[in-house]
Amino acid sequence: MATSTQNPVRFGIIGCADIARKLCRAINLAPNAVLSAVASRSLEKAVSFAKANNFSTEAKIYGSYEGLIEDPTIDAIYLPLPTSLHVKWALKVAQNKKHLLMEKPVAMNVQEFDEIVKACEENGVQLMDGTMWVHHPRTAKMKEFLGDAERFGQLRRIHTCFSFAVDPDFLKNDIRVKPDLDGLGSLGDAGWYGIRAILWAADYELPKTVTALPGPVHNEAGVILSCGASLYWEDGKVATFHCSFLENLTMDITAIGTKGTLHVHDFVIPFQENEASFSAGTKCFFNDLVTAWTPLPSEHTVTADLPQEVCMVREFSRLVGDIKNGTKLERKWPIISRKTQIILDAVRASIEKDFTPVTVQW
Amino acid sequence: MATSTQNPVRFGIIGCADIARKLCRAINLAPNAVLSAVASRSLEKAVSFAKANNFSTEAKIYGSYEGLIEDPTIDAIYLPLPTSLHVKWALKVAQNKKHLLMEKPVAMNVQEFDEIVKACEENGVQLMDGTMWVHHPRTAKMKEFLGDAERFGQLRRIHTCFSFAVDPDFLKNDIRVKPDLDGLGSLGDAGWYGIRAILWAADYELPKTVTALPGPVHNEAGVILSCGASLYWEDGKVATFHCSFLENLTMDITAIGTKGTLHVHDFVIPFQENEASFSAGTKCFFNDLVTAWTPLPSEHTVTADLPQEVCMVREFSRLVGDIKNGTKLERKWPIISRKTQIILDAVRASIEKDFTPVTVQW
Repeated sequence: MATSTQNPVRFGIIGCADIARKLCRAINLAPNAVLSAVASRSLEKAVSFAKANNFSTEAKIYGSYEGLIEDPTIDAIYLPLPTSLHVKWALKVAQNKKHLLMEKPVAMNVQEFDEIVKACEENGVQLMDGTMWVHHPRTAKMKEFLGDAERFGQLRRIHTCFSFAVDPDFLKNDIRVKPDLDGLGSLGDAGWYGIRAILWAADYELPKTVTALPGPVHNEAGVILSCGASLYWEDGKVATFHCSFLENLTMDITAIGTKGTLHVHDFVIPFQENEASFSAGTKCFFNDLVTAWTPLPSEHTVTADLPQEVCMVREFSRLVGDIKNGTKLERKWPIISRKTQIILDAVRASIEKDFTPVTVQW
Repeated sequence: MATSTQNPVRFGIIGCADIARKLCRAINLAPNAVLSAVASRSLEKAVSFAKANNFSTEAKIYGSYEGLIEDPTIDAIYLPLPTSLHVKWALKVAQNKKHLLMEKPVAMNVQEFDEIVKACEENGVQLMDGTMWVHHPRTAKMKEFLGDAERFGQLRRIHTCFSFAVDPDFLKNDIRVKPDLDGLGSLGDAGWYGIRAILWAADYELPKTVTALPGPVHNEAGVILSCGASLYWEDGKVATFHCSFLENLTMDITAIGTKGTLHVHDFVIPFQENEASFSAGTKCFFNDLVTAWTPLPSEHTVTADLPQEVCMVREFSRLVGDIKNGTKLERKWPIISRKTQIILDAVRASIEKDFTPVTVQW
């Protein structure tokens, strides 16, 4: 029997991060999931979080992570802890046979990532990272365009950017600027999305090399606040990305093929929740006197019946439901996450190696 | 007395290139210019070109470039010859005291460029390159936004792209794929615009280094069909560009500041001739639950009373009229052209030096 409103996946949340508020709402809105527990190292904090985030009166509130992880009534854990704590807690979650929805970046590096995947596979639990935008219905529509040999042709260039300008308090105190917490900084946070978008556009084919762009900015503790890289595939595809905490909010994917061009300016978080657009140009050229375009690119709008994070929770819960009924783990999601993590590692390695190309290997 | 409809700048055109058709129309539409002569190595071709491009019955038709260059009634020459011929003919034009509107790229390299500038300065004639988009009224509006400390802040990232997909005949026969004609290929053609746009956004401050991106495509004769580079300034600004003959028509500038973001998708040739738009985001951030943007970027539309190439001819003719009346040469335009040419040279040098950074010097 698949999960449904009658048999929903029972979610527990470990840690009361800001981003967890969004996931609570998503779990409450997903038809096949239920918000069943929350844990904080402070019981008081957990109680207050549960109150603020529409937990039902039956939900369990824990003053320790272990309590929740060992609770046999919980099916799945959403883990929004700082990245450096992921491997420790993800292993405990997996060992307690709970499926795992992880905030990104999944790990500090591929070695840690592989420990997490190994634990999930050995314990038969599903792993998915919390990259929401890939679950938006717009993403499928954009992919249709990119996959259309007639309208888009062969992919040759990708550029992505995700930046947002943080305030002085963030630069001093946020976990994303602390080497011992979200130690991958802007690369792990904003960069994860831009790298994922490049891999998504390239059908998740890994590039041959990654070369960091000049001018990364680190804070005094050595955490990346801003950086970029170019990616190169043997078939000639080239991608560039930029990620930063230091510039105005920008969220671009530009994908250019032999016959078509895709533009989207709000790929991570759509401008508005109920609908999202992208622009698609096909076989555009100039008029005879080269004074205008013909044809013009066209705008496509996709209605979102559910917010993208609800689509993510619904998809994750569907997989968990299937697994309960004997289906195998869905390996697609850990594979995509691992490829993203591989590129993160390569960007860091290239920065350390003075911006020389780093060969990418699975 | 300044130029006017009573006293217009008398233009001669050397060579019957396709692009010259557009300039004929522009000269005819400009209030302070008149289409007075055309020269081709074939008189028949010149006659037929003049007929097809609305030359008046008084216009002179020459079967040799020298004839036109030596005509004392001509004030200014538009030179759309292949790049490799620029230095030879530009020098003759300048030596005959004719002002010079040059198709881009101005020269094959900075050394040639400097010969042209020297000849123009020695002979008191104005030099301007034929980059039309910088004369569009939208460009001034976009620059206003980039220069606004409150709305845009400090410029930190620029990405530009200009690609168009040519047909097999172009790849075999166009002058832009011939090493002895427009030997700079896609870099000199499309790349000129993308590099100019980066310099324009950076207030024409030269970067410290230029590093070619991996994956340039050359044809069998060694001409660049597709390439890209990153530019790095000492203050931390970083730019990337891509130019190509091999992908669908795409014309992007993305400029990101600490407080604002500019997007334009038709910067070289606006989608339509009578108006042009750009998007400007200012202090964009997320709503509390990070499910939407606030505020949204806004779209700005600028009406073009005259096509951008007419604005260019009008500005060039205004300078020529001023010079006739004793004003000095306007050095701004040759300086901007030279900086563009310097970056072209640096991209080629970096490709030759295995994609290592090339230091940029004025």
